[in-house]
This record gives sequence, structure tokens and C-alpha cells, in this order.
Amino acid sequence: MKALLAWWEGLCASSKFLRFVDVTLRGIGQVMFQDNPLSGLLFFLAIGWGSYAAGVPQVAIGGSVGVVAATLTAYWLRVDKASLKAGLYGFNAYLVGLALATFMAPTTSMWVYVVLGGAVSVVVMLAIANVCKTWSVPALTAPFVLTAWLLLLATNAFSSLGGGALPPVGEIVPIDPDAANPLRFGDFVGGVFTSITQVFLKGHGPAALLLLAGLAVNSVASAIFAVVGAVVGVITAHLLGAESELVTAGLLGFNPVLTAIALGAVFYRPSGRVVTYALVAAVLSVIVQGTMMALLTPFGIPTLTAAFVLVTWLFLLPRLQFD
Amino acid sequence: MKALLAWWEGLCASSKFLRFVDVTLRGIGQVMFQDNPLSGLLFFLAIGWGSYAAGVPQVAIGGSVGVVAATLTAYWLRVDKASLKAGLYGFNAYLVGLALATFMAPTTSMWVYVVLGGAVSVVVMLAIANVCKTWSVPALTAPFVLTAWLLLLATNAFSSLGGGALPPVGEIVPIDPDAANPLRFGDFVGGVFTSITQVFLKGHGPAALLLLAGLAVNSVASAIFAVVGAVVGVITAHLLGAESELVTAGLLGFNPVLTAIALGAVFYRPSGRVVTYALVAAVLSVIVQGTMMALLTPFGIPTLTAAFVLVTWLFLLPRLQFD
Amino acid sequence: MKALLAWWEGLCASSKFLRFVDVTLRGIGQVMFQDNPLSGLLFFLAIGWGSYAAGVPQVAIGGSVGVVAATLTAYWLRVDKASLKAGLYGFNAYLVGLALATFMAPTTSMWVYVVLGGAVSVVVMLAIANVCKTWSVPALTAPFVLTAWLLLLATNAFSSLGGGALPPVGEIVPIDPDAANPLRFGDFVGGVFTSITQVFLKGHGPAALLLLAGLAVNSVASAIFAVVGAVVGVITAHLLGAESELVTAGLLGFNPVLTAIALGAVFYRPSGRVVTYALVAAVLSVIVQGTMMALLTPFGIPTLTAAFVLVTWLFLLPRLQFD
Repeated sequence: MKALLAWWEGLCASSKFLRFVDVTLRGIGQVMFQDNPLSGLLFFLAIGWGSYAAGVPQVAIGGSVGVVAATLTAYWLRVDKASLKAGLYGFNAYLVGLALATFMAPTTSMWVYVVLGGAVSVVVMLAIANVCKTWSVPALTAPFVLTAWLLLLATNAFSSLGGGALPPVGEIVPIDPDAANPLRFGDFVGGVFTSITQVFLKGHGPAALLLLAGLAVNSVASAIFAVVGAVVGVITAHLLGAESELVTAGLLGFNPVLTAIALGAVFYRPSGRVVTYALVAAVLSVIVQGTMMALLTPFGIPTLTAAFVLVTWLFLLPRLQFD
Repeated sequence: MKALLAWWEGLCASSKFLRFVDVTLRGIGQVMFQDNPLSGLLFFLAIGWGSYAAGVPQVAIGGSVGVVAATLTAYWLRVDKASLKAGLYGFNAYLVGLALATFMAPTTSMWVYVVLGGAVSVVVMLAIANVCKTWSVPALTAPFVLTAWLLLLATNAFSSLGGGALPPVGEIVPIDPDAANPLRFGDFVGGVFTSITQVFLKGHGPAALLLLAGLAVNSVASAIFAVVGAVVGVITAHLLGAESELVTAGLLGFNPVLTAIALGAVFYRPSGRVVTYALVAAVLSVIVQGTMMALLTPFGIPTLTAAFVLVTWLFLLPRLQFD
Repeated sequence: MKALLAWWEGLCASSKFLRFVDVTLRGIGQVMFQDNPLSGLLFFLAIGWGSYAAGVPQVAIGGSVGVVAATLTAYWLRVDKASLKAGLYGFNAYLVGLALATFMAPTTSMWVYVVLGGAVSVVVMLAIANVCKTWSVPALTAPFVLTAWLLLLATNAFSSLGGGALPPVGEIVPIDPDAANPLRFGDFVGGVFTSITQVFLKGHGPAALLLLAGLAVNSVASAIFAVVGAVVGVITAHLLGAESELVTAGLLGFNPVLTAIALGAVFYRPSGRVVTYALVAAVLSVIVQGTMMALLTPFGIPTLTAAFVLVTWLFLLPRLQFD
């Protein structure tokens, strides 16, 4: 693996185009904190597969257009080279592209919007990262969430922007207990897998294996915590009496996946105390996803990864030392 | 009084259990800024009385469970000893416990939720305090408000969490002028007392005397500003034409109580200019409580002490020197 | 021009009253970033004209009462002299006064509210400026937006405060495509002019000429970027399919006016790259205004300049060097 990456790094050093591809792939890899072009490539293939299987290839293309627009913008803005090379200006744009193409009608306006969203996400990333630096915490996917919310909510005001696939606007209604059916073992396993792919807004179980492979090639710990986060997510949501369809679709499990990777494998070194801390945060991510779903009901926009961002910030800001 | 506290401190120094009790009581005292176990004890008794009288003893128990969970969590997280001993990791949890037990059905899930909420409130306190430190302002009860909002709003998504006692979800409707009846003198006095107990989410006039006693044993100025804040709250609300039932229940007066104590007696040294400043802030707290009630109408969650936190932050952030 | 201002400065140096007038006028000038009493005077006349023509003279008076209350408050709080003299504690209050008088019934309570709002806006300005200083960004009109939102939303809770002219509370409904009619050339030009006056909450085309004159006497670049922002605003809104009535009333164009001045002429030195950056931000301001309109629909409060503040902060926080 190391030899492969060294060979690729050699190629990139001698080709501006390949360097651009490298930065773009690392951008996709950073959605799950992996500064590795091979992780990015595997994530890219997983999302392509999931989009194609769902009959919405424009979603995967949207993500790609977004991340390319962002990488070009980052070059134009002459941002910090090291962060750029690590893909830190790409992951939010990839997610913005996926989100806009998921929730909007695929018109010409939408594609212009994806390019704008990808470009703006770089500015938003620089802004939020600068604010977060004051407390030594990372921006996480907050730039994605903010950019996508701003752009999706605006579709209500402009008739050339069709937001027909957005969640319906409505009053908050407490869950009907009948919707919380007992889960069978197959549902449970399916929910674990879709929880992993929903990090990229797709509910496609098999593609989760490609995502886990993409994690494992760079960080086995990240792959393990991803699975742990998904299992915790599905079990917690079910025990609390969540709507079964949401659980099996992975919609209550993708936040704990990201929270568990972030706290368990990326920003702390794993230890018994850290694992306990990360597990509590993962459980809270499930609850806060429920909060976000209620909070956004009057606005008709998706929760995206807001629960992960909020909970992980709250658990990183104390800057606890577990060693 | 000093001799009594010195004797108690001597006992605590020689017993881990009594130290734990001491820290827990100080945590309750810190709800109204008093780093004093006797204040905490009197507050504890007042809330126990109010809960018992209202037929909801689980509310007082909820607060106690929350603060115990928080103190244990704070020990486990090895937080700063001085802040821990001063009860700074307990007051938010006490309020979280009171709030969850007030607005949720008393099921087993609720009790698990109270423990989780108490534990999480410590992390949230550490996070918000760390952010606030940048501008040398205190976290106030922001960790309570954020934790309780997150947990209460989530009840909509999980059928094992019953949020039946939450305010109804609805559209914002301007107040009916007929609801703003003239207050008689008895209503007025009653409103002043309940404004003080609503700091702890209870509307029980007589218990206000215990709370005032708890303030006075540690800080006579705090007791005076509590009464001043309550009086300002009731008068302002009534003059502005608030709903009379809200005024007499103390629901428009508890924020100015806290604002007046904080600005008048705790974070500034009292002086003519400081009193003027604190009074304007107290008046604004009443108005902002009206704002919060409207703002949260679509979400069906209680305002808690958000108005106090926002106004007091706004009035502390300028870091004015009044000497 | 220089001689005129020097003569005036001489007069102010020898008269406390004229200094007060000077500070107040500069406060009005700072609504569009101009630290110049003549700019302030021309803005004052423009808004007086617009209010009188619309049959709501109380709006212009409200702004004046607000800025006078703020200047007195700033003196009482003994704020930093240099900032005070530059009018930095007046512009938010002027806008608060305009907003309260625009959206509320002109009762005695309203006038008390305007005085309170003007005074409080100084505290809010100090608070927000102190927070923003951490990242070397200006407070912009955030203190106005926050103060006015708090005060306007509270009108729902108090029967003596009539918020009858506030936008209706309702569910977010996507725009009806039929409302996005083709614009004729006259509509287009009208929309450009009203976009400039809507910075001060007035839709009165001719008064825009006075505002542009007020900009030009202090900064020709600001006047140019104001027009550019308005043109970008109207074109972008129309191309995206906005409601034609909103475009011609200037309600989608005032944010890009402010964004273009701020980024193009005030906080960066104009250059090719800066112009590109400012234009993207201006386009985004139009979109985010659509976002804000949707976001505030359930609350029935106006968007004010929130879109300008948010976008300009996002584009200033990266602290990019374009030289």
C-alpha cells in the first residue's frame, strides 16, 4: 500500500493534472477524515455505484462537479498549500454537490448552483475554520451543512430553482408509536450498512463495503469505529423507539458513524476512557438527529450532518486530556 | 454563619462522601450564583417543597438525580478541581433534571434520560465555558438551556420518550388584548414571589422565602437584587400588556430575577451606574422572554432561561468599567 | 469639499451641541460605511423625503429618535472616543428606529420602545464588536438586526405593542412561477434605484440619487459599488426567477448593495480579483436573502440586512490577501 501511494505521489509531483486529481480524490476522502487518494477513489466508486443503482446518476456527478469547482476555487484563492493538498477544501463541496443534486430537480440552473455551491463552500470553509481555530477545533462538515442549508432553503424564493425533492414543510408532530416496529435481524444489519452510506446521503447497503474498504486502506481504526458508530446508532435509535423505516434507511445512524470515527480514531488516541467518551457522544448524536429532524420540520430542509457537527464540537471543545 | 461553614468544611475535608454532598449542594446553590452549601440546601428544600405541593415529587427527584450524575461525571472527566468544588459542574444538571422531569412523562426512559442529560451537561458546560473564556464572560445557564432543548425536542422522534407536558406546537399568534387584565395588589405580590421560584421552574410563592433565605445567607445583595428583578419583571410585563396569567405565574419575571442578580450583585460591584445598567437589562429580559416565547412556538419547547442568558451576555460582553 | 468639512470640524470643536450633531450625522452616514457628516446629512434628507412621500413621516422621525438615544447612551457609557466620534454607535440605532417605526403602530409605547431600542443597540454593538474583534472582522449591521428582531418578535407577547405591519406568520410556500414575470426596462431601472433605498427600509427610487450623492461626497468607489451591487442584485434575482414585485420594490437588491460596497470599496482595496470576489458575494447575497425570507416565514419578522451581514462575514473571515 505504501509503495503504491509513493508511486502515485511521484506521478503527481510531475504532473499538474494528476496533482489536481490527487487533491480532488483526497477531498472526497476527507468526508470521512482520510487524507488518502485511494480512500477517496473507493468512496467515489461507492457513491457512483449507489447513485447509479438508485437511478439518480446526477447525484454522483453533482458531487464530482462540486469538488472540482471547489478545488479550482481554492487554487484561485491561493489558500494554504498544505491544507489544499490534504483535500481540506474539497470534502464540503463534494457533499454540497451530492446534496443539491439529491434534493433539487436536475435543471441547468441546478448545475450552475452546484458550481456556485462548490466554490462558495471553500470560502465558508476558510471562514468557519478561522473561527474554530480560536478553540483548536476542526470545522468538520459545518461548511457543507451551512452552505447546503442556505442554498436549499433559497429554492423557495426562486422559480428557476426546483426544490421538489426537499422534505415537506409542516408542523412538528410526535412520532406515532405504531411506526416503531420491532426490527428483525436482517433489518438491523441492513440499517448498520445504510447508516454508513448515508454519510454520503445514499441508502445503499452493499456500497458500505467499499466505504469501509476506503477507510481501512488508510486507517483500520477508522473502519472499526465506523462500524461501531453504526451499530450504536441503530441500537440506540431502535431502543428509544424511533420510526423503523428511518432506522433501516440509515437516517438515524450516519451521525454516530462520523462522531465515533472523529472522537474514537481521529482527534483522540483510542483508549478505554476515550472509547467510553466516544460512545456517549455517539448515543447523543442519535438523539440530536431526532432534535434536528424536529427543528427543521417547519423549514422543509434536510438535517444533513448537523447532529454530528454539533455533538462532536461539544465533545472536542472541552479539550480534555485522556492520556 | 462563618463558624458553621468552617465546621462543615472541616467535616468535608475528612470524608469523601461529605465532600461529594458539599459539591452537589454547591451545584444547586450555583443556579443562583451562590458558592455555598447552605444556600444549596435551602434551594433544595424550597424546590422539594414546591414539587411536593404541586403533586410532582419526581421533579425535585429529577433535579437531584441530574446533579448527582453530573458530579460523578465531572469526577470521571477529571475536570479542574477548584471549579468542581465550587459547584460549577452541577447547576446546569440540576436544572436539566428539573426540566426533563417537568416536561416529560415519568417513565423508566425518562430516568435514563435524566442521568444522560446530567452527564452530558458537564461536557456542554466545559465546551461553552471554554468558548466564553475568550471574551471573559461566564457560561451562565447556557449549558442547561442547550442540553434541555436538545433532549426535549428529540422526544418528538422517539416513542419511548413522552414529551406530553411540553408546550403545544403551533403558529405564533399575537396576544389577545383581553388576556391582559388589570392586576390587583395580591396578584402583583404573588407574581413577584412566583417569579423567584420560576428560576427553578416552579410556581410556588411561599417557597420563594426559602430561596431568598438561601441567597441572603451567602449574599444579601443577591437577595435584594432578586426581589428588585422580580418587581421590575412583574411591573414591566404588566405595563407592556402581557397576559395576566403569565405574569402571576411568574413566567415573565424569572429572567429579570437572574439578570438583576448577575449584573447587579455578582459580575459588577453595585453602584448607581451599575444599578441603572442592571435595571435596563432586567427590563430587556422581560421583553426578550416575550421574544423567546414567540420564537419557540413552532417548536413546542419551553423558553427556560434563554432570555436571561442572552441579555446578560449582551450586557457583559462590552466589558464596561463602571468604577 | 475638504475646506467645507474642515470648517465644520472647527465649529464642532468649539460647540458641544454641534459635536453631538456631527456624531449623530456620522452615525447615519455609517449605515453605508461613510464616516462623514455630509454623507449622513444627505442620507437623512433622502430618508426624510422617502418617508414623507410614503405618508409615514414617523419612520424618519423614528430613525432620528433612535440615533439620538444611542448617541446619548454612548456618552453615558463612556465608550471609546474615537469610535464614538466616527459614528460607530449610531448607525444601528438609526436603522432600529426606522424598523420599529416601519413595522409597529405609532403609539406612545412605540416611541418608548424606539428610545429603548436605540439605547440597547449601543450595548449590543459593543458586545458584538467585542466578539468580532477576535477575528478582526467588523460588526456590520448585526447589532441592528439582532436588536430589531428581538424587539419586533416580542410584540406578539405584549398587547400595548402593536406589530400590525409585520409580515404575516405562515408556512413556507415555494414561489408561484407565475409571479416571476418578465421585467421591462423601466422595471429594471426602478428596481436598481429602490434596491439602494431599501438599505434604509424605504422603496423610493428618486431618493436613491440623494443616497448616491451622499456616498460620492465621501467615496466615489462606494457610490460605484452601490450601483454595481444593485444591478447585480436585480439581474441575479430576475434570472433566478424571483417574484417580480419583490425585485422592483428593491427587496432582493439591498443586501448586494451593502455587500458590494463592503467588500469592493471598504474592507478591501479594489482590484480585478477583489471585484470578482465581491461580485460572487453580491450574487450570494441575493440567494441568501431568499433563504432569510423563507427562514423567517414561520416567525413573521422582516429579514432586514441579515443576508448582507452573514455573507459579508463569511467573505471577510477568511482574511484573504488579494494584493
